[in-house]
Amino acid sequence: MRPDADLAPPAPVSLCGDAPVRLASRLGGMRSSAIRDLLAHAREPGMISFAGGLPSPDGFDVAALQRAMADTMADARHALQYGVTEGEPVLREALAAWMTRRGLRCAAGDVLVTTGSQQAIDLVARLLLDAGDVVAIERPAYLAALGVFRLAQAQVVGLPADDEGPAMAGLQALVDEGRTPRLLYLVPDFANPTGATMSLARRQALLQFAVNHRVVILEDDPYGAMRFAGEALPSIASLAAADPRAAALVIHASTLSKIVAPALRIGWLVLPPGLMPAAVIIKQCLDLHSPTVCQLAAAHYLGSGRLDDRLSVLRRLYRDRKDALREALQGHFGDLLECNDPQGGMFLWARLTGPGAIEATRWLRAALTHKVMFVPGEAFYDAGPDPASLRLSFATTPPDLMGEGARRLRAALDTATAG
Amino acid sequence: MRPDADLAPPAPVSLCGDAPVRLASRLGGMRSSAIRDLLAHAREPGMISFAGGLPSPDGFDVAALQRAMADTMADARHALQYGVTEGEPVLREALAAWMTRRGLRCAAGDVLVTTGSQQAIDLVARLLLDAGDVVAIERPAYLAALGVFRLAQAQVVGLPADDEGPAMAGLQALVDEGRTPRLLYLVPDFANPTGATMSLARRQALLQFAVNHRVVILEDDPYGAMRFAGEALPSIASLAAADPRAAALVIHASTLSKIVAPALRIGWLVLPPGLMPAAVIIKQCLDLHSPTVCQLAAAHYLGSGRLDDRLSVLRRLYRDRKDALREALQGHFGDLLECNDPQGGMFLWARLTGPGAIEATRWLRAALTHKVMFVPGEAFYDAGPDPASLRLSFATTPPDLMGEGARRLRAALDTATAG
Repeated sequence: MRPDADLAPPAPVSLCGDAPVRLASRLGGMRSSAIRDLLAHAREPGMISFAGGLPSPDGFDVAALQRAMADTMADARHALQYGVTEGEPVLREALAAWMTRRGLRCAAGDVLVTTGSQQAIDLVARLLLDAGDVVAIERPAYLAALGVFRLAQAQVVGLPADDEGPAMAGLQALVDEGRTPRLLYLVPDFANPTGATMSLARRQALLQFAVNHRVVILEDDPYGAMRFAGEALPSIASLAAADPRAAALVIHASTLSKIVAPALRIGWLVLPPGLMPAAVIIKQCLDLHSPTVCQLAAAHYLGSGRLDDRLSVLRRLYRDRKDALREALQGHFGDLLECNDPQGGMFLWARLTGPGAIEATRWLRAALTHKVMFVPGEAFYDAGPDPASLRLSFATTPPDLMGEGARRLRAALDTATAG
Repeated sequence: MRPDADLAPPAPVSLCGDAPVRLASRLGGMRSSAIRDLLAHAREPGMISFAGGLPSPDGFDVAALQRAMADTMADARHALQYGVTEGEPVLREALAAWMTRRGLRCAAGDVLVTTGSQQAIDLVARLLLDAGDVVAIERPAYLAALGVFRLAQAQVVGLPADDEGPAMAGLQALVDEGRTPRLLYLVPDFANPTGATMSLARRQALLQFAVNHRVVILEDDPYGAMRFAGEALPSIASLAAADPRAAALVIHASTLSKIVAPALRIGWLVLPPGLMPAAVIIKQCLDLHSPTVCQLAAAHYLGSGRLDDRLSVLRRLYRDRKDALREALQGHFGDLLECNDPQGGMFLWARLTGPGAIEATRWLRAALTHKVMFVPGEAFYDAGPDPASLRLSFATTPPDLMGEGARRLRAALDTATAG
């Protein structure tokens, strides 16, 4: 399954039919996916892929990370040994300092290191959810979070979005139906797949809703530091910090995957007071602790003070690619393709418009023969997909290939429309 | 929580009472642990600890692992990027070759890389168990496995052991009661905590039971390669390989934590045909994939061909420490302490005998004041503990401190008995 969770829904065909033994019933809810089969073409030679969710390797701070790892391994007895479940103290300190600089004041003791933010999401699901609990997510939503909540046998409810974020009416309707969510999963900055940013007013409204109805918010922030336009908005967790009733309800998750390197699998949770003991017990059951060697290398890197400069590099790199892709699409599609203009992150969200609009999945089939790829939007919906929508990653394609990629996309659309 | 899962049961005091929000009901089954509080003394200066489950850092192949990591980081674009969920192909190949050399023929495609074998156990629980399913384990058993099965809300049933392994009568009784287990969790070689080895006949009987009643066996083998006495016995998975009906029911788990380095968190599952697709979906939900950098470093190390020599070093090191500790205990306790003689692994299992026998937990309290530690056996029981039993790790204490450690243990016993 390549290369990260947002390529396709976590569900191959005939999962249970082939299994030699009875599987847990939680796996019964996993749907098969034709899109996933299509995306297996990602590594064909000559393919221009706008499908993947990988950060650009051009953004890796290679020499500094090599040095951080060498420094880590120099203290081999520490670097190679078991560590504490909560995370290496030096990394927890560095992450707390980083979060505080980003506006969320916290101490090392509030930080639980996880094996990527994927594990952070799973850990929260195991901490809070019983089978049948309602989890409200954005619609469309990050696929691997959807996978976690399905595995937890939660009732996943997608909230339709307006320009400011998930519409409050959907949440109120759940309360009115007696289905108040246990958990509200939100990605306020540059969400995957849409690249959208929630307004400050919506963040405040969501927090107020959580307080009023005692709903826990899991705020997932993998992309927030990669803002390349507009003004930074406070995280929901930082808004909650002023009020203990609110602070007790907001869990913040983040990761070094997009700003340092995915391969280290360093994610973390900032937990409200009182949740740490139970979270540590679960973390211990999940994998005892995250790899010491990766944690120490991350701490060395953060300690080097290079991250701010690196973020400047990354923001420029991604902004240029985003601009190049939007321009190329505009040139080849004009009004045939609506395309948003995200202020950060890695993704554009687009939809075919006009009388010639076809389903994005049909377009993808033709695109593969033209050696270009994207992810149809329907992959990211819990229900009620917009079949004309699609996600385009601008992260890994060099700017000078954007034009050729857009040209192929247009040729593929013409093929599909003619066919 | 330090330093690995076998220091104490995964359960602090007042877990739910302090939590600001309602926790998942699965956490309600977690018991508090007085032993865990006692073991927080592990890092006091001058402490001789027989409590931990850490491998000896004297056994780390430091220079070779530094080289493996440097070679990994030299190919930074690969080492720092996202990887495939199943594991890096080069590592899966190396692990399949290693398992095949150990007598379990398998191919890279049968191997799923996990973040330590702890995740392997959790993954199997999520793959197979519904709440209320019966899981049979050895009694006493590996604590962090017990934690996983409790988190899965399974009914955990401990099987009393005889000299050959878990007694078959206990399993048959479960069937007779209509409580046939869904899963049988076994550690045939040098189990934690007892260091015991299952006989060949018992392995065969357990496999036959599994076939007769369609029970899945999870065979956990963290220590098997660390045999320093006696003859190697075939793994249950290798016994099953001859018969497809049996092979479909045995999942094998192992790890590099004890033979290379815990900090890499490289574990794996060898899965029967047909279970891989569902297992990959779960793995993706758990953490997308294990750290690329650790996987590639492990592959470089295995590719260096140094493991066999290293295992010779480790076996000698652990055998010498085991012998030294047993001899020291014999000298200070004579018949007051029964102590087994394991053929591998890291642990001795002992019990106080005779009219002066006290509870091991009481002994531990006195031991802490004498600057020596062990884990009372009762920590490892699902129910019906033997209060006079204890686990002593011989792995991390240098041979020349064994005498002093045993002397302190005896002094502590005298204190506790007098008190």
